[in-house]
Amino acid sequence: MAESQETGSSEGTHAADTYPRKILEYMEGFLISKTVFSSCELGVFDVLLASERPLSAEEISQAIGASLDGTQRLLAACTGLQLLNTHQDKGRVFYSNTEQASVYLTRSSPVSLYQSIQYSSRTIYLCWHYLTDAVREGRNQYEKAFGVTSNDLFQALYRSDEEMLKFMQLMNSIWNICGKDVVTAFDLSPFKIICDLGGCSGALAKQCTSAYLECSVTIFDLPKVVHMSRKHFVTEADQRISFHEGDFFKDPLPKADLYILARILHDWTDERCIELLSRVYKACKPGGAVFLVEALLHEDGSGPVTVQLYSLNMLVQTEGKERTAAQYAALLAAVGFTDIQHRLTGKIYDAVLGHKET
Amino acid sequence: MAESQETGSSEGTHAADTYPRKILEYMEGFLISKTVFSSCELGVFDVLLASERPLSAEEISQAIGASLDGTQRLLAACTGLQLLNTHQDKGRVFYSNTEQASVYLTRSSPVSLYQSIQYSSRTIYLCWHYLTDAVREGRNQYEKAFGVTSNDLFQALYRSDEEMLKFMQLMNSIWNICGKDVVTAFDLSPFKIICDLGGCSGALAKQCTSAYLECSVTIFDLPKVVHMSRKHFVTEADQRISFHEGDFFKDPLPKADLYILARILHDWTDERCIELLSRVYKACKPGGAVFLVEALLHEDGSGPVTVQLYSLNMLVQTEGKERTAAQYAALLAAVGFTDIQHRLTGKIYDAVLGHKET
Repeated sequence: MAESQETGSSEGTHAADTYPRKILEYMEGFLISKTVFSSCELGVFDVLLASERPLSAEEISQAIGASLDGTQRLLAACTGLQLLNTHQDKGRVFYSNTEQASVYLTRSSPVSLYQSIQYSSRTIYLCWHYLTDAVREGRNQYEKAFGVTSNDLFQALYRSDEEMLKFMQLMNSIWNICGKDVVTAFDLSPFKIICDLGGCSGALAKQCTSAYLECSVTIFDLPKVVHMSRKHFVTEADQRISFHEGDFFKDPLPKADLYILARILHDWTDERCIELLSRVYKACKPGGAVFLVEALLHEDGSGPVTVQLYSLNMLVQTEGKERTAAQYAALLAAVGFTDIQHRLTGKIYDAVLGHKET
Repeated sequence: MAESQETGSSEGTHAADTYPRKILEYMEGFLISKTVFSSCELGVFDVLLASERPLSAEEISQAIGASLDGTQRLLAACTGLQLLNTHQDKGRVFYSNTEQASVYLTRSSPVSLYQSIQYSSRTIYLCWHYLTDAVREGRNQYEKAFGVTSNDLFQALYRSDEEMLKFMQLMNSIWNICGKDVVTAFDLSPFKIICDLGGCSGALAKQCTSAYLECSVTIFDLPKVVHMSRKHFVTEADQRISFHEGDFFKDPLPKADLYILARILHDWTDERCIELLSRVYKACKPGGAVFLVEALLHEDGSGPVTVQLYSLNMLVQTEGKERTAAQYAALLAAVGFTDIQHRLTGKIYDAVLGHKET
């Protein structure tokens, strides 16, 4: 190349209003998501974590069993996304994980997002292909995406042991990141007997027993979920965690000082929420409380954009929606709870606490 | 709600390294893309452009023929993405387009991204569901995504008149935004007779005749593309634009001073590029030149991330890849072009110019 001249700059010399930089970024959002998802799925970050030195594209492609050309492009994009570092040595390029990639994108990390990514990539991504239909019809698109009817939401989600396990792992991986902030947003130490309704894999129950040394937590969930949770997630060593099998819309709820409903109400309509909360209020000991864990929308509709997107996801996948703190407070007040407060954590999930008078 | 307290902040009080904010953003990229795509597809921005006042969610849902609940959630997310403004009036909320939305996301705008968005949403999004397979196998996933074999790439892309028209509209919409910067990156005024190889809808030809008043441009493309281009894109009023039907790998190329290859080489392997460029070099008048329009990768592999993602897209959809300026220069030099230069525009597409000696 005889000469190389550059005009403009990487940020562009043109006014923002003459070039739709933000919209173009939005348009390539799905390319970024899938690049991260595939890199995880192929084990790029696991291979680099296991290696004691940076690896070449050739070495990585062999280790993950993928084409060299495809691997090179994937590694380049991960470099641009600052998930990988590059090292030049004698004209050759070698790759290593950034710290964020090692901590969050490897399978073995205790705070791994791997399962959440798998679920997003395989299930949510495909459901969202039908977002236009979901908005038009005002209902979820499980049937179109997976050929599964969704008259019973959790029958659809739990349509096979494999799907159920994937869903439980998804739940698990979120609480690894947000769980501690959530259970410490309020001082829950006065509550000794806790019941986690729809407690699933027990990840939030573990956060409770870890933050509050005097409490014990009963995980209430469907029999098949309890079975899976005992098998894969909760060990005998978790002495302060026990299980109770049932359907929280139908079966008696165990007595407790505190009922946790973490990402439960957002699955359901207002009517179903009130039905469930009435049952909780009746079972709750006087002086006890209900503790909601949800992603809260701002009251003025301005955001957070993540929660606005989640509310669309609830449309695409469930019968529910995300709500503001005031909307949750109204549901709680409608069944009798008082002294209702909320706390934002600055992460995805926030907390709402309502009391039953003594 | 008796009291409302907040801990943390919307940006989070925790160090970035203890919370994977960037990775979570990457994970929700596809939600953002699809929100924009569906809003466009349903005509939200068109309805608001046509209205003389901000509209309520009820009015918008009726105008676009979608459920109120779904529309409300879509509008909320568009507000969070700063594509819509909200106006409060007597406790009711009304929506209007931001300027960027009116200019780039409405169907009627001369610089509309609508067609590009439709293609991304319906074709590219689905192809990318198979990115992991593409990387593993090192080849495109047209067959898996659409049940179309891709032995001949453009037979797959042009598998029906409808698909061909969508693809041509996609090409068109990009040059509305980047075309002028590209054709003025170099002074092309010395070249009076220009041939745009694979000139498709003629959008770049129009940018040439508009920027250089003495040139004429021949659009060279496959007969069925020329047919469609005459029918839908180029009118008799474009007096300095003409057509030439043919396959640039097989048929004689018209004599010209300048050959444009805009986003052509990135579809093909190095071998096929050299085959095509040799034919161009032979046909080119002495003193003439070849003008490549492509998104250029940085030489050191650091970015731009958009182009790294595009190179993965070439893997998923074509036989080609994105290249650095030096790689394009090497292809041009291999067939005899000299005095090769490149210019970055600061937008997506850049320019490379190579000369044939007199």
